[in-house]
Amino acid sequence: MRPRRLLYGLCLAAGLLLAPLIARAEDGYDLWLRYRPLPQAMRTEPRIPGPPSMSSSPALDLAQGELQRGLSGLNPDEPGLDAPTIELGTPKSSALVAGLKLPLKDLGDEGYLIRTLADGKTTVIAANTDIGVLYGVFHYLRLMQTGARTDKLDVRSVPKVRYRLLNHWDNLDRSVERGYAGQSLWDWWRLPDVKDPRYLDYARANASIGINGAVLNNVNAKSDSLTAPYIAKAAALADAFRPYGIKVYLSARFSSPIEIGGLKTADPLDPAVRAFWKAKADEIYKAIPDFGGFLVKANSEGQPGPQDYGRTHADGANMLAQAVGPHGGIVMWRAFVYSHEQPDDRAKQGYAEFKPFDGQFAENVIVQVKNGAIDFQPREPFHPLFGAMPKTNLGLEVQVTKEYLGFSTHLAYLGPMWEEVLKADTFAAGPGSTVAKVVDGKLHGYSRTLMAGVANIGTDRDWSGSQFDQANWYAFGRLAWDPEASSEAIARDWAAMTFSPDRRFTGPAVAMMMGSREAVVDYMTPIGLHHLMGRSHHYGPGPWVSGGERADWTSVYYHKADKAGIGFDRTASGSNAVAQYTPPAAAGFSDLSKIDEKDLLWFHHLPWTYPTRSGRPLWDELVTRYSRGVRSVEGMQASWATLAPYVDPERHAQVAIYLAIQRREAQWWRDASVAYFQSINGLPLPKGEAPPPLPLEAYERMQFPYAPGI
Amino acid sequence: MRPRRLLYGLCLAAGLLLAPLIARAEDGYDLWLRYRPLPQAMRTEPRIPGPPSMSSSPALDLAQGELQRGLSGLNPDEPGLDAPTIELGTPKSSALVAGLKLPLKDLGDEGYLIRTLADGKTTVIAANTDIGVLYGVFHYLRLMQTGARTDKLDVRSVPKVRYRLLNHWDNLDRSVERGYAGQSLWDWWRLPDVKDPRYLDYARANASIGINGAVLNNVNAKSDSLTAPYIAKAAALADAFRPYGIKVYLSARFSSPIEIGGLKTADPLDPAVRAFWKAKADEIYKAIPDFGGFLVKANSEGQPGPQDYGRTHADGANMLAQAVGPHGGIVMWRAFVYSHEQPDDRAKQGYAEFKPFDGQFAENVIVQVKNGAIDFQPREPFHPLFGAMPKTNLGLEVQVTKEYLGFSTHLAYLGPMWEEVLKADTFAAGPGSTVAKVVDGKLHGYSRTLMAGVANIGTDRDWSGSQFDQANWYAFGRLAWDPEASSEAIARDWAAMTFSPDRRFTGPAVAMMMGSREAVVDYMTPIGLHHLMGRSHHYGPGPWVSGGERADWTSVYYHKADKAGIGFDRTASGSNAVAQYTPPAAAGFSDLSKIDEKDLLWFHHLPWTYPTRSGRPLWDELVTRYSRGVRSVEGMQASWATLAPYVDPERHAQVAIYLAIQRREAQWWRDASVAYFQSINGLPLPKGEAPPPLPLEAYERMQFPYAPGI
Repeated sequence: MRPRRLLYGLCLAAGLLLAPLIARAEDGYDLWLRYRPLPQAMRTEPRIPGPPSMSSSPALDLAQGELQRGLSGLNPDEPGLDAPTIELGTPKSSALVAGLKLPLKDLGDEGYLIRTLADGKTTVIAANTDIGVLYGVFHYLRLMQTGARTDKLDVRSVPKVRYRLLNHWDNLDRSVERGYAGQSLWDWWRLPDVKDPRYLDYARANASIGINGAVLNNVNAKSDSLTAPYIAKAAALADAFRPYGIKVYLSARFSSPIEIGGLKTADPLDPAVRAFWKAKADEIYKAIPDFGGFLVKANSEGQPGPQDYGRTHADGANMLAQAVGPHGGIVMWRAFVYSHEQPDDRAKQGYAEFKPFDGQFAENVIVQVKNGAIDFQPREPFHPLFGAMPKTNLGLEVQVTKEYLGFSTHLAYLGPMWEEVLKADTFAAGPGSTVAKVVDGKLHGYSRTLMAGVANIGTDRDWSGSQFDQANWYAFGRLAWDPEASSEAIARDWAAMTFSPDRRFTGPAVAMMMGSREAVVDYMTPIGLHHLMGRSHHYGPGPWVSGGERADWTSVYYHKADKAGIGFDRTASGSNAVAQYTPPAAAGFSDLSKIDEKDLLWFHHLPWTYPTRSGRPLWDELVTRYSRGVRSVEGMQASWATLAPYVDPERHAQVAIYLAIQRREAQWWRDASVAYFQSINGLPLPKGEAPPPLPLEAYERMQFPYAPGI
Repeated sequence: MRPRRLLYGLCLAAGLLLAPLIARAEDGYDLWLRYRPLPQAMRTEPRIPGPPSMSSSPALDLAQGELQRGLSGLNPDEPGLDAPTIELGTPKSSALVAGLKLPLKDLGDEGYLIRTLADGKTTVIAANTDIGVLYGVFHYLRLMQTGARTDKLDVRSVPKVRYRLLNHWDNLDRSVERGYAGQSLWDWWRLPDVKDPRYLDYARANASIGINGAVLNNVNAKSDSLTAPYIAKAAALADAFRPYGIKVYLSARFSSPIEIGGLKTADPLDPAVRAFWKAKADEIYKAIPDFGGFLVKANSEGQPGPQDYGRTHADGANMLAQAVGPHGGIVMWRAFVYSHEQPDDRAKQGYAEFKPFDGQFAENVIVQVKNGAIDFQPREPFHPLFGAMPKTNLGLEVQVTKEYLGFSTHLAYLGPMWEEVLKADTFAAGPGSTVAKVVDGKLHGYSRTLMAGVANIGTDRDWSGSQFDQANWYAFGRLAWDPEASSEAIARDWAAMTFSPDRRFTGPAVAMMMGSREAVVDYMTPIGLHHLMGRSHHYGPGPWVSGGERADWTSVYYHKADKAGIGFDRTASGSNAVAQYTPPAAAGFSDLSKIDEKDLLWFHHLPWTYPTRSGRPLWDELVTRYSRGVRSVEGMQASWATLAPYVDPERHAQVAIYLAIQRREAQWWRDASVAYFQSINGLPLPKGEAPPPLPLEAYERMQFPYAPGI
């Protein structure tokens, strides 16, 4: 037995050396900031950070620490004594930076430049502010992480959008509306005493992609969030976030003057109400001197608002703006509103309620508009308000959490969806008047610009509920910094940083990501269909959903399928929602010969026999698309299987399991949808298409009482 | 600048070497299984595990892996080629073990022995089963972790209780009733596809303390947990737990035959109902061949039960027992029941409803009895059912989660509380008839024995919501294995394993732990008071709580304070609950000259001027105790501050913050309670006692709408 034992002993000894490295499995916690050693071929000569700046600040300390962490992680080779150096700082904090007379003027408060000096040995990361330096460090590390050349740099970057915010729909009981990644990160109960170290990791991740603000609580807000104990809790979070350049904001419930102020009204023109908000703002700013401001959902889905008192959205927003204005705060007023009455077309309501008030909002108000006119569907045409309010700061709200795109168990990279709306042409000032140019303020000269993303982050160890949903958080930040960036380039960066910079990995992985959202559109809501999911939880297919409280909360309201045809006529012969767009944009939607078929049934009610551009009649095309979506997921599965050599086993297995869920649910969507629409039109399936395995009633009977995120 | 840069470069290089070790801060995830290197003085010669057993099983593989993990972590020195060896296995799996002819016969299915052989170089961990070997490995590693001698071992351990279960009050929406550590560990939504690696870590931690079963869902159960999709989810968990010797159990809702069986009744004598349960049991056992059985809360707090049909608890339990019996399953039937009618004394109800049915329960039924007759108060006399049902298997249910003891933010080690009840003498068969001897089955010859702990575990990174609450999970497991163990010895093991085996640490830390529960009793419910907390959430003081749905859900029902006196008269002159105890036990409670003052106001209503043994009148004694509780917490704070040298900064800081919360809340309890009782009796405070800083109304007005765990 001795030799065997010896062998065993040796193995054990070898294991000992590895132990610290293998103690923790890859669980996704590190996001895109893993800083694992690069493949040898990608390593440049090790670099060392220059000495710490003389006049240091928390943000500059963070920048210095991040640089060291990144450099030592990415290239653990020991640097030679004459290794290249990276100097960072502002003209104030660094004599070297000050001496170089760099062109920093136009960088503003957040921009930075990265430049390799003439000696070829020194790289400078410089900015006007410490947070600009931190942003520059993250950019530099990103270049290293993705295997880009870093020996001759001349980079200059300034954010195009001023307010780059996550909106957390987090409740005070720690549940998250439309959250699929565990509980709220904010442990309200133990705050402000207990400061979870994760708050710092959250802020760091946000800073790495340029996000500079967080609305902490749900837009369906409770007044409690504005009471003294909760202000103290928010202040503790603000303290944690501040060094990372992130301000906190709060959703404000419009009826707070009644609920916590002891008043009988919340009328925005009532002096006592105005005094309440002014005092409340003063109280908040005393605890949080750099408080960002309020986000408000008013007169929408049962929330109170100024219309309860016969006042306008502008009256409500301006009152709050006056309260926070002296402190430098802003008010984000959501345009996602709809009245209690049944509308002929809900898609028209936002425009109808806001357009008339263009020019009446205070300078520090931003009207926050969803990307589309309904509600974060897998595909929507751009919201008609973009381009329609030149005298009102408009911000763009997108949903990072996948309420309508398969929760966190479906792989759907949303970068292309956001790029699609940002590139959409409003024609507001002629061709090229893209939504991006509205949002970045250039088109109308907005004084304040905003992009807001409804966060997909929670207490799940991997933050987002799945590995690939991290990409949506990442892409949102990058697009908010530059709304004209390429979602594909962003995907490539993310995949390289999060998994492997090896091109044999990033090539197929980026291809998967770029096709993934279209796959979801195909198996859920092809050819312009929308709002067909299960009632309330929005999980799974529900094209049969009808009846109940409101017609515009049903599926049949949106698809209008009958024996003859399908689709929502929003042209002049129908609701005429197209008239809310500029004439050239409207023509592009109205004219059947011009319209992109991706939007076809959004704007048109057409016979099942309508000949689509594929040559197939509409019904056949619809079924074909549903099936294509399923096959796309199968393609992702096959592609992912080939990528095992480049990914740690833990995360590879997890993604594979999620794709299997997605495959199964895509098939379910396809089968249930086909069964339902076939029950309406009685038409045969196209040749080669398998009939749904269950009768329609079986799909209709399925219940999901414990679906998350409600 | 060169020399400075050189220095910096060297620091960086040093940092690189440390990087893998410091990458993760101590967050408590590793529990008492940290296996960090022992101080040099405590290290014995490195040992190596013998070669893997020939006929291996998952449990044996785990034992082997755990041993290697522990040994290499605790002593990272390289073992010499002639290092001592640890051999493990069963006579079946190990030729060595088989050849030694060890006295394994009486070890049963879970016991083990650890013995150093005559050569002084080989230690054998042997058992009849693979799980017994795993238990033995954990025992061996515990000896190493705590710095005990391991060179001359002769250990033999057999569990005294057969069913050692955690009860998870986890809901299917992932909330946890009375949970203060995040969400349920069970990600029901993503199960059975996604098997969180944490399930394995959970099972491993349980196995390390001998827990062998988990009831997955809340006793306030939903029938959905018994439907096919949820059975599949439970089966996935069972698969994860199985190698660690842990069986899954389910809470069963008694009305399931109606809700998911399509029947009109759940009458346990109805043949269709009996057929439903039989078929349901068969279905579950098909998916989970080693399913443990059902836990039932019936006819209690609104839950359905056999009494709805005029049947008895025995009728209900026996029907279910018949369904699971053929598969080897059991039914745990909770004795925590009370009727809809207002009782004269709720403390009497459990006994009144169960005692008459002694001997009528099936052999595979265990009646699960809480430690006291009310509801997990900081202190309760032992439940009168213990010792009163010799012909019915009785199990003990304790609450590990601190519903009534300050949630997870107060440090209260519950070992002494459980030891107190286990050592309490029922006198059922003369002196020495302790609750422990009832529970371990010796006193009455029970065929099945059980200890159940309501879990305090959730998704919080530290599992229990605080570092020190891990000790309660740990102590529960150890006491379930041996109900006669010393809670102080257990605390010492835990503190050594979790923080540091240094006696300069364990001495003060164990002292803190051992006094901590008494501190909570003092500042919340001294001298036998009980059920004085805030309504519904049970957070903070609420001695003024009155009115509402039921009298026995109020505080005034329990303290009965008036101008003249305070306390619940449960003697013959009052509710006569004492008559439910054996005469010697009853005399110990009834007789004012004999009763331990810790139980005084539980059993007696006494004038405020009643002279307590301290010489102080009752009112003065009460106030003194409240204040003493606050000072005890201050003492814990001071003690903890001195222990910083022995604890990593992360966990030391976290505990310090929690103690500060506890200090503040202890003061609040003291002040609010004193203010309230003083408003009743109008008496002055004892000399030197500070008056409460706020008027009583201020305490009464405090609201906590987002308190966790409801």
